[in-house]
Amino acid sequence: MFITLEGTEGVGKSSNLAFIQNWLINRGKQLVVTREPGGTPFAEEIRQLLLAPRQEQVSDDAELLLMFAARAQHVAQKIRPALQNGFVVLSDRFVDASYAYQGGGRGISMQRLDALSQWTLQGFLPDLTFLLDMAPADALERAKKRGDLDRFEQEQQAFFERVRNVYLQRAKADPKRIMVINAAQTLEQVQQDIAHVLEQRVPK
Amino acid sequence: MFITLEGTEGVGKSSNLAFIQNWLINRGKQLVVTREPGGTPFAEEIRQLLLAPRQEQVSDDAELLLMFAARAQHVAQKIRPALQNGFVVLSDRFVDASYAYQGGGRGISMQRLDALSQWTLQGFLPDLTFLLDMAPADALERAKKRGDLDRFEQEQQAFFERVRNVYLQRAKADPKRIMVINAAQTLEQVQQDIAHVLEQRVPK
Repeated sequence: MFITLEGTEGVGKSSNLAFIQNWLINRGKQLVVTREPGGTPFAEEIRQLLLAPRQEQVSDDAELLLMFAARAQHVAQKIRPALQNGFVVLSDRFVDASYAYQGGGRGISMQRLDALSQWTLQGFLPDLTFLLDMAPADALERAKKRGDLDRFEQEQQAFFERVRNVYLQRAKADPKRIMVINAAQTLEQVQQDIAHVLEQRVPK
Repeated sequence: MFITLEGTEGVGKSSNLAFIQNWLINRGKQLVVTREPGGTPFAEEIRQLLLAPRQEQVSDDAELLLMFAARAQHVAQKIRPALQNGFVVLSDRFVDASYAYQGGGRGISMQRLDALSQWTLQGFLPDLTFLLDMAPADALERAKKRGDLDRFEQEQQAFFERVRNVYLQRAKADPKRIMVINAAQTLEQVQQDIAHVLEQRVPK
């Protein structure tokens, strides 16, 4: 089973990733926890390239191709082998993030996203995705308290509004896979909602 | 005008790039000389990732996506702006190298190469390409004399035979653009052949 966690900066992905991880371990699942962009040493090097603030303007297409390069490596070298060996794989972000950030945020068309996604993944998708959703204005306040901002966190609120909208559109189009969790609730309530979904969806 | 130089390791690309560069400068052309993968600071960082020998097996798709990420950046930030400003652009390698190395060498299908090339370049191609061609066995002898080998130069001769074959197939399919130069000749003869093509193809 391949589970992913999505959402904009500051929605509480880290705390909830840890919660899901503990929930699965308590159920006796063998688990691989990973993240995107990254997940293997080579893909983490690509992540560094992508996140480092830089003078040179990065073309939108180059950014997206790098995201998918890291993803191809991550799937081939880590995710697929782990699934084949019976592990549950839990990833902080996956392909929905490219639709949201490079599609919604940067404005690359959904048609071009579909083409590159199909080229790279050939239909491979998570079995279950949690979308932690809240108003970007509130989420960004949280993210800023963490300190130095990466190249994405430096974007303006309008960028994150577009990111959020694409995430929500994707959830609407694929409601069986993508579960929207209201991340503006208390952490306790968020985790109750997540646990409720896990109870229903994770095989005993 | 966009001119590229292609060929396997050790065929004499550097010397002949310098020769073409001088030929164009002597004709009073304003020139941008560049290379792939690379050509901008960001794309050169991607180049470093691609060429560094490493323990982790790099998936063929990840390698190809990285090549096209670097190319998207190179075209958007350097090649197109230079062409729009009236410069002649001369590049050591371009998209034909991806067909030859990742297609011929690694075995990615020509159909998948076409799809990614179309996604990234949308039909943008060099006006003139020189393919320096010689038997890989002889070319590799030359490359090895230069010292430390990068991740591609470490491949075996059969790899370079496949690379060469795809280069030659592409030249056969697009003979107006790709000029095959017999690189096994003396440097003087090679340069005479190149000059002959340049005389015919570069506008006065």
